[in-house]
Amino acid sequence: MPHIPLPDGVPGIRSLVMYRPDTGQHLYDLAQALLRSGSPDSTLSDAERELIAAFVSKQNQTAFCMNSHAAASRYLYADQRDLVDLTLSDPTAAPISAKLKALVAIAGHVQADARTVSNDLVAAARAEGATDGDIHDTVLIAASFCMYNRYVDGLATLTPTDPAAYEAMGERMGTLGYQLPKATASDVASPVTNLS
Amino acid sequence: MPHIPLPDGVPGIRSLVMYRPDTGQHLYDLAQALLRSGSPDSTLSDAERELIAAFVSKQNQTAFCMNSHAAASRYLYADQRDLVDLTLSDPTAAPISAKLKALVAIAGHVQADARTVSNDLVAAARAEGATDGDIHDTVLIAASFCMYNRYVDGLATLTPTDPAAYEAMGERMGTLGYQLPKATASDVASPVTNLS
Repeated sequence: MPHIPLPDGVPGIRSLVMYRPDTGQHLYDLAQALLRSGSPDSTLSDAERELIAAFVSKQNQTAFCMNSHAAASRYLYADQRDLVDLTLSDPTAAPISAKLKALVAIAGHVQADARTVSNDLVAAARAEGATDGDIHDTVLIAASFCMYNRYVDGLATLTPTDPAAYEAMGERMGTLGYQLPKATASDVASPVTNLS
Repeated sequence: MPHIPLPDGVPGIRSLVMYRPDTGQHLYDLAQALLRSGSPDSTLSDAERELIAAFVSKQNQTAFCMNSHAAASRYLYADQRDLVDLTLSDPTAAPISAKLKALVAIAGHVQADARTVSNDLVAAARAEGATDGDIHDTVLIAASFCMYNRYVDGLATLTPTDPAAYEAMGERMGTLGYQLPKATASDVASPVTNLS
């Protein structure tokens, strides 16, 4: 039960940005810029950006964000979709690139205590090919999900339990990206098809 | 020493938004919306919003954000400026309203683990006069500073040590709000007068 009156049946951050659209617009615009485009020299794919978002959300134990961004990452990885759950289970053992492993390690430090992102961690990522933009974008993706996760959890928003709901969200996020929802009757009547 | 090449002598988040302005614009717009205006029914003043930002930054041990937002709050509180340091030292004993104490307690829970924002904490804030908008805005301010703090710390940005630098920032933030800096020669030559 959410702590404030939110649109009935609308889950997660979608219900919050409908509650206060003026801040919601900036939150969605930030997600779109960060997860669907990169710093000029960045090598990270959209699938990898979504995977970092899902990984941080798992560390924060925010089920809504973890499940929705994992679904988006699976959609974008397409026939390599198994990488997502393998990475979420154990990023050090997953068959992802050494560069992505090093960036996921940085993301983990940002989530736990960003002051522990050391020169050694950054040098290890560079040694595997990470660019300045990759390091920047990884830190800001991890930092921003420490916000999105807390916003969703701190106001006790609705978290669907049906995996099919997240699969629909992931496809929507993977195709349409992050667009501020409008509060219409059809949104509230069939929220699952309108999730992002 | 920052982990990526940032403009020389430019501290904190200002150096980061100059590095990647397309995300920086949304980060500044969010701060402006959240710290300089409220949900329609919110009763929080700008000074109180800055105080919550400084409190969360202190919990995260991010000196740059704590010092700059404490300075902005002092500037906005004007002849009640002593409330800022009293609250940062011990919010339960500070001579602030019972409503603000209850909201600061919620902000503390959002910072530590947002899943612990309980019905009882929210009911306690409502009993002291907090509105839905106050609760929403407190949670989003606290959540967003868990992002800003990590962004600043995770990339090891420059943190000034001179208190006068923060006093100048606080006055600027209190009067001009949050405007994306432009990367000009004068910015880099005299960053302290251009901080936000």
